[in-house]
Amino acid sequence: MDHDKLLDLLLETATLKRMPRTGWAMRGVPHVESVAEHSFGTALVALALAEAAAVEEQAGPFDMEQVLIMALLHDLAEARLTDLPVSAVRLVPPEVKSQAEAVAISDLLAPLPGAGQLIALWQAFEDGSTPEGRLVRDADKLEMMVQCLRYEQAGCRGLDEFWQAIDGHRWHYDLSAGLYRRLQAIRPRADA
Amino acid sequence: MDHDKLLDLLLETATLKRMPRTGWAMRGVPHVESVAEHSFGTALVALALAEAAAVEEQAGPFDMEQVLIMALLHDLAEARLTDLPVSAVRLVPPEVKSQAEAVAISDLLAPLPGAGQLIALWQAFEDGSTPEGRLVRDADKLEMMVQCLRYEQAGCRGLDEFWQAIDGHRWHYDLSAGLYRRLQAIRPRADA
Amino acid sequence: MDHDKLLDLLLETATLKRMPRTGWAMRGVPHVESVAEHSFGTALVALALAEAAAVEEQAGPFDMEQVLIMALLHDLAEARLTDLPVSAVRLVPPEVKSQAEAVAISDLLAPLPGAGQLIALWQAFEDGSTPEGRLVRDADKLEMMVQCLRYEQAGCRGLDEFWQAIDGHRWHYDLSAGLYRRLQAIRPRADA
Amino acid sequence: MDHDKLLDLLLETATLKRMPRTGWAMRGVPHVESVAEHSFGTALVALALAEAAAVEEQAGPFDMEQVLIMALLHDLAEARLTDLPVSAVRLVPPEVKSQAEAVAISDLLAPLPGAGQLIALWQAFEDGSTPEGRLVRDADKLEMMVQCLRYEQAGCRGLDEFWQAIDGHRWHYDLSAGLYRRLQAIRPRADA
Amino acid sequence: MDHDKLLDLLLETATLKRMPRTGWAMRGVPHVESVAEHSFGTALVALALAEAAAVEEQAGPFDMEQVLIMALLHDLAEARLTDLPVSAVRLVPPEVKSQAEAVAISDLLAPLPGAGQLIALWQAFEDGSTPEGRLVRDADKLEMMVQCLRYEQAGCRGLDEFWQAIDGHRWHYDLSAGLYRRLQAIRPRADA
Amino acid sequence: MDHDKLLDLLLETATLKRMPRTGWAMRGVPHVESVAEHSFGTALVALALAEAAAVEEQAGPFDMEQVLIMALLHDLAEARLTDLPVSAVRLVPPEVKSQAEAVAISDLLAPLPGAGQLIALWQAFEDGSTPEGRLVRDADKLEMMVQCLRYEQAGCRGLDEFWQAIDGHRWHYDLSAGLYRRLQAIRPRADA
Repeated sequence: MDHDKLLDLLLETATLKRMPRTGWAMRGVPHVESVAEHSFGTALVALALAEAAAVEEQAGPFDMEQVLIMALLHDLAEARLTDLPVSAVRLVPPEVKSQAEAVAISDLLAPLPGAGQLIALWQAFEDGSTPEGRLVRDADKLEMMVQCLRYEQAGCRGLDEFWQAIDGHRWHYDLSAGLYRRLQAIRPRADA
Repeated sequence: MDHDKLLDLLLETATLKRMPRTGWAMRGVPHVESVAEHSFGTALVALALAEAAAVEEQAGPFDMEQVLIMALLHDLAEARLTDLPVSAVRLVPPEVKSQAEAVAISDLLAPLPGAGQLIALWQAFEDGSTPEGRLVRDADKLEMMVQCLRYEQAGCRGLDEFWQAIDGHRWHYDLSAGLYRRLQAIRPRADA
Repeated sequence: MDHDKLLDLLLETATLKRMPRTGWAMRGVPHVESVAEHSFGTALVALALAEAAAVEEQAGPFDMEQVLIMALLHDLAEARLTDLPVSAVRLVPPEVKSQAEAVAISDLLAPLPGAGQLIALWQAFEDGSTPEGRLVRDADKLEMMVQCLRYEQAGCRGLDEFWQAIDGHRWHYDLSAGLYRRLQAIRPRADA
Repeated sequence: MDHDKLLDLLLETATLKRMPRTGWAMRGVPHVESVAEHSFGTALVALALAEAAAVEEQAGPFDMEQVLIMALLHDLAEARLTDLPVSAVRLVPPEVKSQAEAVAISDLLAPLPGAGQLIALWQAFEDGSTPEGRLVRDADKLEMMVQCLRYEQAGCRGLDEFWQAIDGHRWHYDLSAGLYRRLQAIRPRADA
Repeated sequence: MDHDKLLDLLLETATLKRMPRTGWAMRGVPHVESVAEHSFGTALVALALAEAAAVEEQAGPFDMEQVLIMALLHDLAEARLTDLPVSAVRLVPPEVKSQAEAVAISDLLAPLPGAGQLIALWQAFEDGSTPEGRLVRDADKLEMMVQCLRYEQAGCRGLDEFWQAIDGHRWHYDLSAGLYRRLQAIRPRADA
Repeated sequence: MDHDKLLDLLLETATLKRMPRTGWAMRGVPHVESVAEHSFGTALVALALAEAAAVEEQAGPFDMEQVLIMALLHDLAEARLTDLPVSAVRLVPPEVKSQAEAVAISDLLAPLPGAGQLIALWQAFEDGSTPEGRLVRDADKLEMMVQCLRYEQAGCRGLDEFWQAIDGHRWHYDLSAGLYRRLQAIRPRADA
């Protein structure tokens, strides 16, 4: 194993601390979270969902190791690609974006001995092809709405599009859907 | 002409004030300029180049109206696409990026009566197919290096890649090449 | 032409990227735009107004080159003077401010071959003495209110003074007045 | 399980995105990372270390699930306690700090079904009482120095104390010590 | 007197310009004031209270020198301890916090010839044991609420806890209580 | 005494927390201190100078109450005028600036019973007409250079002009001059 390449990976992924989540910036949110912050949040939400699902849903139990790896890696490609907002995604063919992400993630993770397995986990997240992948897909969306609510509780406005987009989203697990409904319920009144 | 669509254009392009120039952010620059700031700078640099070229180069005179419109619009598509850094551009086929930008710019400018001509000017910048387009291409690069020098004069480090990338750049006009060499000459010493 | 002085101009005007529009800062706006961002926005608004006026108003057509130069240069003196808010302007005799701006702009633009003509255009903007100057004066105000609305849409409050000040403003063109009324109409409700 | 309390946990831990790592702020670092960003980085470093150790060290294999949970939770108490810099830690008896953290972490994690096990993992990190706990302790320090190097590569100075403090640190694994030495080797020269 | 130690004091206390008031950050306030800014504000409020009390209350007159020194020094220990929010204070025994602050303040002020008297004034503020100490305690709270109102006037929300905490506060002087009630009266409506 | 006007004063002067010290911003300093932070620093430096002078210089003793009031109020007018950098001051006749400041300070302090005396103190600072006024003038400059050194220690460059300007400054007290020379001595090497 090449230690210099391992360090390159660690130094390059630190870039995610400076990558803004562009969707917030475009709506004028003043203090925009980074992709690293969102990824941390997603891992915590995924941990909580996996824990809760274990006692509540028929689904599960979930492989926690897989869940956490997926959450940590799900946006890693953005260290090179940056965070493309919805308005950009609409302009790029989906297969081009998928392909670009797959190349980025493979290249980034290459220095790790278990790169093959990690890439397979990332792909399972992308495709939602395993129970764990689907759980982390829910966690990714739920974390976004937790942050959205935090912004609104702090006075940010103009974020209705986020709620509307999620309203049309199909949650993979009832637990996620239920938590999202509670988030909606504690949202500051729309006319406030 | 639809005034509401005209206002939508003005409101949406204000987004460029919040779009960071991602190349700087990735290298840890603390106070990252926006695409709007870069576009303003490019227009000023283009104005100065066109003025100076008029008395110095065989090339020219340049149509100043075209020069300024190109400078103002050259990154307008980033209001939807965001500013893709080199590491992202490498992962996307060039024709996909060009196509996405062309769609964005056409859609954004549609509310304006002279949209067709403006889009044609933007295309001439993209292709470098007119003297004015080539001048603004130089202005775009020169402005980036003016800002790079400002960052370095203020203590930023780790920006060598920008200078190296430009060293391999082919300037369209001797005037631009000469100004760039002077920028290099006043750069803080590499080991400082 | 002295190339070093030309570069000095480009390096110094990059300062406008770090000059805050102080009126916003004084009311607690969290993410204050720079003078460079406002100038870029003004140039876009002026471009849109000139385009639209060409098909709508009796006034016009406008000399687009003059319009864009005025928009780009209208706040250039602030690279030295900074952006004085209303509360400061009230404390300084108007002729002192005009004189300071005129000296700054003349000194800044001196390295350019066409400095005389550029300064004359800036003066025409200051005095509103040409149709183009009056159009850019409208653009300057309209851009401010576009940004004000963006701030309010994002949750900022305490900006009523800006709307009140503009309500007493005399627009030079019906087109500008009409666009402003539409901005007012889409403003978030005052008690929200 | 109480879903409202689960949401409270998710909303409260989002606070870590706004908690600055105070050690950097005290030395004048301009863009201070958040505790959430550091925790994300620590999880990535821990993942890399566990992967690499599996093929290099006699130690291991490591339980990856435990490693990742520890990394994600190791600073969670700071959502209430904030990040205390060295100068503050010196002023507070260690047992008071430990006790405060233990209360905070227990209280925060209480809504989760597996709270008991999670708290035990956090304690094992605190005490360095398991191979996984010691690995994450190394990851915590190594991530800090990766970020420190990023700051220095970007031009930050005045961070010598961080390197000196770590020079006296006893790494638990040769792999971590080796990676740290490589970080030192690529550090910008001290007099630069 | 040791001039190098005197400079160390001046350099170290400049750290307070980079110390955020963490209570605001935890509620998502975008532009968080520093401890230095709060201390400046407290000194101004204390000056105003002392002036006003001199003509209004039976209490007083106050020793203005003592009042201003207390206001300037009241949070000086935070240069080492940082600003602990309510959630942290709850987790630390009060005598531990007091002791830590006393050690920090004594150590910081040691280079000054009159350190003993300054420390005694700081203690009188801590204990509220003199009329001046009680006045500055009121100023500290009143300044916090002035800033809170400024945040709310600018659109920040989610700060109700601050008002509720102060509602249970016992003001030492009627003047302070009266000014606080006026602050409440001009607060933007709770449902707005 | 009008309590509403007193509150207006407190609310308006909180604006100084958002007023940047423009000289730093113009040179690209990333994290620009506010006028409130500088004023706090000046009060601490003035306190230290007055304490130290009492045991070292023939001059003195100083009236500490006057010293602290002057330091707190010396830039208060900037709540309306903003902080004019050297490049702006050169463009405005000195008597216009003095007059504007005098009007602003008189108007701001008017709600206080002792306004007359406070304004007289501010004038004594402006004119350097008392020993206390001259001491605070030294503190104002010394604080600026303490902050300048902090910026340089953190990696900022391009601040030579500040040192050069102060080198030509005439210190009123040997103590200030001596402390400044020590600041110079610990400055990071110019070529570093």
